[in-house]
Order: sequence, then C-alpha cells, then structure tokens
Amino acid sequence: MTPLSFQDCKTLIEEKIASFALDQRLPSGLYEPAGYQMGLGGKRIRPILALMGCNLFSDDVEPALMPAIAMETFHSFTLVHDDIMDHALVRRGSPTIHTRWSPNTAILSGDTLCILAYEYLAQTSPELVPRILEIFNRMALQVCEGQQYDMDFETRCEVSYAEYMKMIEYKTAVLQAVSLQIGALCGHASEEEAEKLYCFGRNLGLAFQIQDDLLDVYADEAVFGKAIGGDIRENKKTWLVIKALELARGTRLKILQSALRGEIEHPDEKYRQVREVYDDLNIATLAEREISRLFEQAMSGLKGVEVTSERKTELKKLAAGLIRRKK
Amino acid sequence: MTPLSFQDCKTLIEEKIASFALDQRLPSGLYEPAGYQMGLGGKRIRPILALMGCNLFSDDVEPALMPAIAMETFHSFTLVHDDIMDHALVRRGSPTIHTRWSPNTAILSGDTLCILAYEYLAQTSPELVPRILEIFNRMALQVCEGQQYDMDFETRCEVSYAEYMKMIEYKTAVLQAVSLQIGALCGHASEEEAEKLYCFGRNLGLAFQIQDDLLDVYADEAVFGKAIGGDIRENKKTWLVIKALELARGTRLKILQSALRGEIEHPDEKYRQVREVYDDLNIATLAEREISRLFEQAMSGLKGVEVTSERKTELKKLAAGLIRRKK
Repeated sequence: MTPLSFQDCKTLIEEKIASFALDQRLPSGLYEPAGYQMGLGGKRIRPILALMGCNLFSDDVEPALMPAIAMETFHSFTLVHDDIMDHALVRRGSPTIHTRWSPNTAILSGDTLCILAYEYLAQTSPELVPRILEIFNRMALQVCEGQQYDMDFETRCEVSYAEYMKMIEYKTAVLQAVSLQIGALCGHASEEEAEKLYCFGRNLGLAFQIQDDLLDVYADEAVFGKAIGGDIRENKKTWLVIKALELARGTRLKILQSALRGEIEHPDEKYRQVREVYDDLNIATLAEREISRLFEQAMSGLKGVEVTSERKTELKKLAAGLIRRKK
Repeated sequence: MTPLSFQDCKTLIEEKIASFALDQRLPSGLYEPAGYQMGLGGKRIRPILALMGCNLFSDDVEPALMPAIAMETFHSFTLVHDDIMDHALVRRGSPTIHTRWSPNTAILSGDTLCILAYEYLAQTSPELVPRILEIFNRMALQVCEGQQYDMDFETRCEVSYAEYMKMIEYKTAVLQAVSLQIGALCGHASEEEAEKLYCFGRNLGLAFQIQDDLLDVYADEAVFGKAIGGDIRENKKTWLVIKALELARGTRLKILQSALRGEIEHPDEKYRQVREVYDDLNIATLAEREISRLFEQAMSGLKGVEVTSERKTELKKLAAGLIRRKK
C-alpha cells in the first residue's frame, strides 16, 4: 500500500478537528477561544508526523488519529500561554487570545486545551494508553522547562551553545520527536523502532528551529509574510547570536554585547549592526551547514528504521520540505 | 484490620510529597514556585479522601498513593491560576506565586503542576490507568468550566439557584467526588461501588462549599483566621446571596440588587446592609439546613456502599468534621 501523503494526513486531521465543533461547547467564554486557537490552522506538522509515524508500520492509522490531535492540541495550549508571557499581539495573522479576549481568558482556555490534549491522547486502544501517557508526560514537562530556560536566557548576556541546544530541544524538538514515537507505537512498532523515530524527530526538530532562527534574519520578506529581524530587535537568544558570540572578537564582539545589553537604543540601528556582524562572520552559511548536518543525521537515523524504503517516501519528502521552507 | 486514620493518611501524603523535593529540580525558576505551592500545606482533604476511598475496599492503599497526590497536585495547579485570575495576594497565609515571583512564573509553574498531576496519576498499576485517566480528564475539564462560570457570574446580576449549584459542583465538588472514586477503583472496587463513592463525595463537596460561603459571613473571626465578609465586599456569587435574591421582596430585594450592581460604594456599608438582609431572611439557618440535607444525602449514599460498617468509620468522621469546621 502507498503511504498516506502529506495532504491525506492533513485532511484527516483538519476534518477530525472540525468535527469537535469546540467553539459550540458551553461555557462559550471558555470554548470559543479554545476553538478559535485550534482553528487558526498552521502547518499541523506534529499530528501529521504522528500519522506518518504510525503509517510506517501499519496501513491502519486510526489508532494514531486522536493521539495525533493530542499533540496539536498540546502545541496550541503552549502557544496560548507563551503568547501571554511574550506579550505577543498576533499569532498566524490573527489576534492572540489574550489580546482579543483577556489574559484571564487566555490562561483558562489554555488550561482547557492542555486538558483536552490529555483527553484526546486517551482515545486510542487502552493497552497503548499507559506507555504513550508516560512518553507524553515527560515531553510535556520538558516543553515547560524549555520555555523557562528561554525566559531565563532573556535576562542573561552569556548563554552557552550547549545551553541553547538543550533549550530548543526541550521547547521545540521533543514535540516533533514524541509525535513520531507515539505514532509509531500506535502502529504497533517495537519500542526500539519507535525510539529511532524519536531520534529522527528530535534531529529534525532541532534543524527546524535553527531554520526558524535563520529565516528571522535572512528570509525574503515578501515570501516570509512578516518583517524580518524581530529576534535581533527583541534580544532573543537564537542559534545565530549564540554562534556569533562564540566566534566574534574585538569590535564585533563589543557590538554583539552592547546589543544584548540593550545599549544600542534604536531597534533598526541594532538590527543593522548585528546583521553586519553576522554577515562578516558568515553566520548564515554556518547555520545552513548545521541544519544540513542535523538533517543528514535525522535521515541516516531514518535509514535504520526497519520498514521498506517505499513506506518512508512521504516522511522523507516532509522532512526535506521542512528544511527547505522559506517561511 | 482497622482503617487508616485521618492522621495516618495525612502522614503518608506529606511524606510522599516531601520525597519529591520538587523545589530542588532544575530549572529552579520553574520548580521552586511549584514546590513552594505544594508545600503551602492545607488540609490535604482530596488525597486523604482518595486513600480512604481505596482503604474501604483494600488494606493495601499503595496503588492509590500517587493518584491521591495527583488530585492534590491538580488542586494546587488550579489555585495558582485562580489566584492570578482573582488577583489574590495571599494563599494560606503566604504570598501567592504571581505576587512573590511574577504572573509569568505563576502561569508556567501552574502549567507544570497540571502536567505533574498527570505524571503522578499514571504511577499506579497500568491496568488501572486508562479508566482513571478518563475519569480524571472529565473532572479536570469540569473544574475549568466551573471556574469560567464563576467568572461569568461576576458580571451578571441574576444567577439562578440551579446555575449556582452547577458552578460549585464543577468548580469544587467533582474534585472530592473523583478523589473518592479513583481511590476506590485503585482498591479494586467495582464500577458500581466506585460510583456510589463519587456521589457521596459530590454531596459532601457541595455541603463543603456552602459551609465555605456561610463561614465567610458568619464565622467567628478569631477562629476563622481572617476577616469575614470578603465575598459580600467583592460581589461574589455565593449560596447566601443566591438564596437571599430568591426570597427577598421590596426594600430588601432593592438593597441586594444595588449591592450587586456596585451602587453601595463603601465596602463596609455594603457588608452591613447585605448582612442585615441575610439576618432578616434567616439565610444562615437555611444554609445550615441545606448543608445538613446534603450531608444526610451523602451519608445515606455511603450506607449503600457494600463494605462493613467498621471500614467506613474514618470516612464518616472526616465527613462530619468537614461540615462542622469553623474555618
């Protein structure tokens, strides 16, 4: 059987999410914002990875469908609360919940999404539940820890490369890794094969995040759909700045340090100066090289997964697309 | 075997919670506040109910211990987020997390407590996990819904008796009900017996909340440990005001309505006037009667639970103590 395509998976996910009609539930003060967030769309990468992880081992992806949606719902929950913490006004082109409603509404409907994620996760064969719950809980704690590290880093001038990599692993990569692992287990993969998928997903997730950091500075604005340079303006700790701090000497190091200490007041001027240092140090090329390295590592891990190469085609296509994306 | 006493149960719970040394985990920005909240103490009613629910059916309460702590941890999570939403400065005599640290810290460490609750819940015999997870998820959503109704009611002048009872059932009573139900299932009770414990806990929880509302107006301040009248001053919808609105006519009704519309500006004056209406309408006696009715209903439900009367002694004592409490 040919594996399900990206579009097949996306349709399954979107139809299932729409079928919940979350925004129709009562009390509407709670479920309207929850449904709004789930309806904002996005790429649905995580649930698609879960379906593809299952589909590698089984033609029947039904047992992975609700756990897949649990991954998306948990991701939505983290976005709602992160947006409050980051004072973000816009998410996927629409106002964030705390902006459109209120911070209290965003706290409580975020909590509801978190609990719904667990409700969906449990809707699969009972014998799978204890193990996938254990995996999910570990991931969920790591996502919170990653967010805490990210916030801790905002007030620190020096963050090591290892610290940065751990932060993005926890905050971003484990969600993709666990989507694949849980999907595989729902397809009755062995623990060992599911673990290989986890590693594939983690490397892919790390590459994905560095690509994100890179696009924020070097994307084509017309394609990217929003202004570039946000991370530099807001002093975010990204792969680019961590690497640049590692390599810069003399004046260049001083520019980065004063930018991070908030000493270059005008945001555009800060962006111009930091971007110049990145250009001089060839940071974009180094980032692309690291993305390729992680991508290759992911791919070589996937090679070790013991199913026919044909079954892997769609997953490979998706992974390659994620790394090549321009927005 | 004699059933475990309240103090036996409390010791088991406190020792287990202390053994986690939550506040030692990293990142400390996340786990210190989480451990702080869990360490604030309180009566530990919910986990004790879970242990007693188990102990009714089994001498071995070990399988119920981590699920019991899950109930307490989930309760702590809701307190952390409720305190942000209510702008509460103090909880159990100590500063709330958002006051002592920051709202962002309270959001994220609250999230962490919610996820830890699920982690603890899963730490029991695997064959119990799917069913107790299902029960827990339903309860967790209802708690969020109850909190939303409570917030919705703040901006409404008219709330029906039925709406109020549903709100306190969801926000408060189901946590006690589910603690007993899950405890019973961990003691290998049948679904039917566990359901009886759920009903017992729900009625007890409703009585508990009305007692709470009553104490806020009629407690002896010296015993109560804090100022009375807070609910009236803050326009909270309580059993007393809902009942008073139902019974009041003429001037008395006008006083209640203008108090709720915020037309009596001085809080002390508002308290004095509303309290006078309550006194005239004998609201305290009616509340006590309703508490007794619910308590009797709970007790008659407990009578139907098919274990020896001796096994029920500690649970009966606890229930009676909850209703007689003065703070």
